[in-house]
Amino acid sequence: MQNLKNLLSGPEWLVEENGFDVDRINFYETIFTVGNGYLGTRGSLEEGHAAALQGTYLNGVYDHHQSFVVDLVNAPDWLDISVYIDGEKLSMQTCEILNFERTLDMKNGMLFRETRFQDSQGRITKYQSIRFAHMASPHVMETYVSITAENYSGVVTIEGAINANVLNLDVEPVFKTKTKFDPDVKWHKWAKSVHLDHVSGSLTNEGIYLEVKTKDRPHHIGYASSLKASKEGAISSKKIDHKYALQSLTVSIEQSETITFEKQVSIFTSRDVSKKDVKPSAVSLLSENSNDSFLTRFKTHQAAWNAKWDACEVIIEGDDAANHALKFNTYHLLITASPVDYHANIGAKSLSGEGYKGHVFWDTEIFMLPFYVFTQPETAKALMMYRYNTKEGARDYAQEDNHKGIRYPWESADTGHEVTPPWTSDGLVRIWTGERELHITSAVVFGLIYYYETTGDNDFLIDFAAEILFETARFWDSRLEYNNELDRYELTEVEGPDEFHELVNNSVYTNALTKWNLEKSAEYYTILKASNPNKLKILSDKISLQEHEIENWLDKAAKIYIPFDPDKSLIEEFEGYFNLKEVPITEWDENDMPIYPEGYHHDNCQETTLLKQPDVLMLTYILPSMFSDQVKKANYDYYEPRTMHKSSLSPCIHTIMGIEVGNYEKALQYFERSVYVDLVDNQGNTNTGMHIASAGGSWQAVVSGFGGMRLKGGKLTFKPWLPPSWTSISFKLKWQGDEVHVTLNHTKFVFLWKTEKSGKLDIEVKDSAVALPANQEMIVML
Amino acid sequence: MQNLKNLLSGPEWLVEENGFDVDRINFYETIFTVGNGYLGTRGSLEEGHAAALQGTYLNGVYDHHQSFVVDLVNAPDWLDISVYIDGEKLSMQTCEILNFERTLDMKNGMLFRETRFQDSQGRITKYQSIRFAHMASPHVMETYVSITAENYSGVVTIEGAINANVLNLDVEPVFKTKTKFDPDVKWHKWAKSVHLDHVSGSLTNEGIYLEVKTKDRPHHIGYASSLKASKEGAISSKKIDHKYALQSLTVSIEQSETITFEKQVSIFTSRDVSKKDVKPSAVSLLSENSNDSFLTRFKTHQAAWNAKWDACEVIIEGDDAANHALKFNTYHLLITASPVDYHANIGAKSLSGEGYKGHVFWDTEIFMLPFYVFTQPETAKALMMYRYNTKEGARDYAQEDNHKGIRYPWESADTGHEVTPPWTSDGLVRIWTGERELHITSAVVFGLIYYYETTGDNDFLIDFAAEILFETARFWDSRLEYNNELDRYELTEVEGPDEFHELVNNSVYTNALTKWNLEKSAEYYTILKASNPNKLKILSDKISLQEHEIENWLDKAAKIYIPFDPDKSLIEEFEGYFNLKEVPITEWDENDMPIYPEGYHHDNCQETTLLKQPDVLMLTYILPSMFSDQVKKANYDYYEPRTMHKSSLSPCIHTIMGIEVGNYEKALQYFERSVYVDLVDNQGNTNTGMHIASAGGSWQAVVSGFGGMRLKGGKLTFKPWLPPSWTSISFKLKWQGDEVHVTLNHTKFVFLWKTEKSGKLDIEVKDSAVALPANQEMIVML
Repeated sequence: MQNLKNLLSGPEWLVEENGFDVDRINFYETIFTVGNGYLGTRGSLEEGHAAALQGTYLNGVYDHHQSFVVDLVNAPDWLDISVYIDGEKLSMQTCEILNFERTLDMKNGMLFRETRFQDSQGRITKYQSIRFAHMASPHVMETYVSITAENYSGVVTIEGAINANVLNLDVEPVFKTKTKFDPDVKWHKWAKSVHLDHVSGSLTNEGIYLEVKTKDRPHHIGYASSLKASKEGAISSKKIDHKYALQSLTVSIEQSETITFEKQVSIFTSRDVSKKDVKPSAVSLLSENSNDSFLTRFKTHQAAWNAKWDACEVIIEGDDAANHALKFNTYHLLITASPVDYHANIGAKSLSGEGYKGHVFWDTEIFMLPFYVFTQPETAKALMMYRYNTKEGARDYAQEDNHKGIRYPWESADTGHEVTPPWTSDGLVRIWTGERELHITSAVVFGLIYYYETTGDNDFLIDFAAEILFETARFWDSRLEYNNELDRYELTEVEGPDEFHELVNNSVYTNALTKWNLEKSAEYYTILKASNPNKLKILSDKISLQEHEIENWLDKAAKIYIPFDPDKSLIEEFEGYFNLKEVPITEWDENDMPIYPEGYHHDNCQETTLLKQPDVLMLTYILPSMFSDQVKKANYDYYEPRTMHKSSLSPCIHTIMGIEVGNYEKALQYFERSVYVDLVDNQGNTNTGMHIASAGGSWQAVVSGFGGMRLKGGKLTFKPWLPPSWTSISFKLKWQGDEVHVTLNHTKFVFLWKTEKSGKLDIEVKDSAVALPANQEMIVML
Repeated sequence: MQNLKNLLSGPEWLVEENGFDVDRINFYETIFTVGNGYLGTRGSLEEGHAAALQGTYLNGVYDHHQSFVVDLVNAPDWLDISVYIDGEKLSMQTCEILNFERTLDMKNGMLFRETRFQDSQGRITKYQSIRFAHMASPHVMETYVSITAENYSGVVTIEGAINANVLNLDVEPVFKTKTKFDPDVKWHKWAKSVHLDHVSGSLTNEGIYLEVKTKDRPHHIGYASSLKASKEGAISSKKIDHKYALQSLTVSIEQSETITFEKQVSIFTSRDVSKKDVKPSAVSLLSENSNDSFLTRFKTHQAAWNAKWDACEVIIEGDDAANHALKFNTYHLLITASPVDYHANIGAKSLSGEGYKGHVFWDTEIFMLPFYVFTQPETAKALMMYRYNTKEGARDYAQEDNHKGIRYPWESADTGHEVTPPWTSDGLVRIWTGERELHITSAVVFGLIYYYETTGDNDFLIDFAAEILFETARFWDSRLEYNNELDRYELTEVEGPDEFHELVNNSVYTNALTKWNLEKSAEYYTILKASNPNKLKILSDKISLQEHEIENWLDKAAKIYIPFDPDKSLIEEFEGYFNLKEVPITEWDENDMPIYPEGYHHDNCQETTLLKQPDVLMLTYILPSMFSDQVKKANYDYYEPRTMHKSSLSPCIHTIMGIEVGNYEKALQYFERSVYVDLVDNQGNTNTGMHIASAGGSWQAVVSGFGGMRLKGGKLTFKPWLPPSWTSISFKLKWQGDEVHVTLNHTKFVFLWKTEKSGKLDIEVKDSAVALPANQEMIVML
């Protein structure tokens, strides 16, 4: 396997970088992340670069120590490979680069690179590499390097290292001071935090081993690494330093000869095995793997990826760019979530960067969960189990303010305690989201019920979800504020999803979801009382739940103030919103995203009706039966022009609701803003990680937007609309343990219910009932 | 030379570290700095350490780029040496340390280290090293390492690197926020700045070469390095990376065998030679040196150090600790200033650390210059030439505020422009020192005249000093504010040396020195008119100086308001000072330094009579003839109890003036605070560099305090007092091209004027005239 390019998939599966632009290095690092749910590793150059933001993140490995707030730890770098020709390093920074290309192969979950280096002595070396995080064997990371001496004979030295001298980014002060000395002085700099301490390093039969531990949390992290050459006679040397270990091979190379090298790293932490087993596990896995060839291992990895894509690929015919972009979003959803880790979730930037420090938001339940529920329910279950397993921190959080039950934190890391920073890192601006975005708690409940209704996982409902349903209801019960004068319950000084407006009263989104949470909790109590009274009794005893509490939830839910007058169409985002200053948006940037009106910015939009993202449209989407079509349309028409989309969560909702209300032009425009968010970097910060919620939102934009799919009354329902230039879309949905295959074109749906059940599957298409037969295609003309 | 310990001098010359304490690592890095005026290199471990603040500073090499303000650049590390035994690194962080000792040998200007490492395999290795910056050949840095395999036979690999992947420390935000999430969260972190870009790297006959350049300034910096083993048959390997180059030697070692290695690095910059000659100069110097043995080169270095000590050693008999501490201060003064570099000066932390970013303050003229003038006038000249060579930046500075002449910047780097940060690095606190500590300008003039009066260097006076004398007078002329009502000149909203009080009116120190500056400038005009009318004419034409300006200076000087009523004894530090709140100091720390009274700190002492350092006592010291003995005593008694000494510049002045006013007990107490400031770290920040002004002040405390030496009317005068427990002090003073040797005990002075002149030297002892004969000891009984 001398030309690694031969491993690449067809062009619809590739994301390419041609030519090296140092200003784009951090952007490509993010989008070229490889991973397997166990870890993510940014697409940094193997040999390092001064401008790199290198990062490997092990899912669930957090640490606090000297950071502003808890960090998803930048784990030791397993990529580190340097190649020297007669002592001179092949480096993007010192050699002439005759060509440079990299290709992310999404189908194979691997990154390919080819670089031709001309060094100071005129030697030309062709360097190819592929790297991947093994999808079938998640503790294994592989790099395969091919070196060709184009115009010389000489000596090649390759060094494969494990480098734990890595840092997390931390505060990012941006200073801007005008003085007579430096009229334009401006800083934008990264401070960094150390999270890793040395534990041990040693030489092994296969190569080297290094173990470190996090500073405050008890995680031990062990990496074993081996390096092999295709050519006999290489001189091997190994060395172990404090937080660095290195193995090198030196071998002669003749003109036109190609030599290949494989570096394999196995990773275990004390989250995976007991502390004392970290080293034996890592070392023995490498040892076992050494019996197989690289190609054998690669094929196992490839097979695992094929199975993933088979479950979740969405095909858009007639729009290659959109088809490609959706695959790109799906690729990143596939590499970041684990089906087996019940204590980890998905940070706002996935495992592709340090933005938001790996913290978990409502993004999981509201934006990403539908993708996982409908394509990989076992991963969806793991994501929801994380909420179950962090519930004690969430319980503490409720108690801190003398409330009852469970209150989920706006930003969550490994314990369920709130990890939102209360101030910006420069200490200048108060951040209220942690304390006031109460709607995260109902979002978690939304996720639990969504998972349950889609999968029918009764064990999950009684064993895990029920406790959270009841305890969140108890939280709301204790948290709601009674307005004596008006005989209603309120929530004052809260923050809805629209973070431009802080400390508002009676956010309609928050209040409606609170009411819904209380009602759903009561409803499931009733359901469980009928279906599983014994287990409900055990749970009720465990949490001392009394029946009168349930009545109380319903009483309070009935009196929660929803600032919406059914006689009028417009829903007020919060009390007083309609009295705010109207400042029209009049300019859009080159990505068609709104520009702040002159004089306005994040911190003073509070005074205006401008939105960061649309609370009301969100509400009409996620509680679809609550409002009439006419209300949905009126509110879309009102709020859409006022929305700045300063959250990547905003455009996908505008696609879905745009289609629902018949504003197709806007819907398509927003689909582009959503599906290309990272490929074109339209939020301007892809360098610090993917907008992974937007990736989930883009999947929803296709399935629930163009496909018009909603869950209503426990049934799948569809109201499609296909862009005129598209030929068809097709996707698969896991449903109650079975599969529903869906293809849609301009004239018809084709459904296939794959099941071992007998009977029919009731669905709805355009408000009409349809019964799908088992294992037989059914055509529904539109 | 197998046991490097044999090279050490006698115990009075040694500063020792016994045992390794990671919490003290940065402290020892500072005090164990080696240097030669061309550079300083902190006493970091050769092999690195995670807690290190490693630093090499090339005098005069500044850069701005992303730092808050201009930095003295942390230059590439030449020390970097790692030793591996069968692949395992000898590291303080991973091996068991059987013993660890380091010794700074001040006489030989070198750092010795011995460490016995026991690695994970039980192998015990004795490691010794010495390092020095060559004093006779300032571009050469040497490290000599000896390795003994105590209980094994194996393979030793030694790596000698040049590492330009170094960073400057930068902003240091200290946050302290109490939240319910993190009740005790506290940050103290270092951000870092990159100043070096790669230029080239190459393999050379002797070893390796690496060249980098600063980002904004045009400095190229080239290092050539060679590594040699005492044992034949070592396998050599070299590699060059982007900002890193490495040479390694691998050789077998038998049990009980000792192998020695020498690493030599030569350094040139484009400040030394033209840009294109940087590499040839560095490479050829190493090549030439390779003809000499290490010991030969060491002896040349030693001889140069002996000559330095001969010129400036002060011997205190009867107090070994004080004698030793004064040598320590003198050592640091000797390694930081260059006699040949007319464009560099001494930063507030010398070349031993990054505190104050290598910026130059009044510390040079007021605190350190007397030491250099009296012991190494050529170095004193270089320091003053720096002021001449930065005068154009200082001229711009005056013009920026529409003033005339030359205004020196409070903090100065390479150009003479102001480099004081206008804000603290967190942007929260305004720093006024740069704009308002006007007295730096008269301090420069004080230095020029001090140098001239001591050396009689007439060429310097007319060729360099005169222009500054006249142009600073012009600055004051344009800067003084006329008070019409009171018919006087004032300076309002200024800051004196006491930085607790900002924006004060008519600071007595500032006004008195301004008056003195104007009068001296006029006086020297008259002197030069008589002694050197031709050159004065040329200078006057060059700067368009008119005779009437000089009259004007004297007119204004006569009307400068000095807030001192000769009928009263007390001098008011500034207008209104006596009305401030009295807050007594009642507690002292373990180093006998005052503790802020409850509720007070740096930022609110403004409201009180508490001082950071004593303006009035400074004034009575540096203009000794201005005030009567009675006034000096009254003010000492008044201000001393109100002084917090939050500047290391404060204690030495209290020694000197304490002796002058007869408060011997206080004087001795303050001498300890001054002379031990860094050895006992009594300011708590020696980790970021030496308090080098205090080192100069400690020399003055002995010579001008105990020796009672003052310059009055162009004559040396003495009024001694010796602590009862001391036997004697002796020192040498360079005087008008000759030398005066002085020994003082409790009963007499012994003077020796070494000269080729005829006649006698008129001095004063206790206000009586004494005429010293040439080259013959003279005893003056006390």
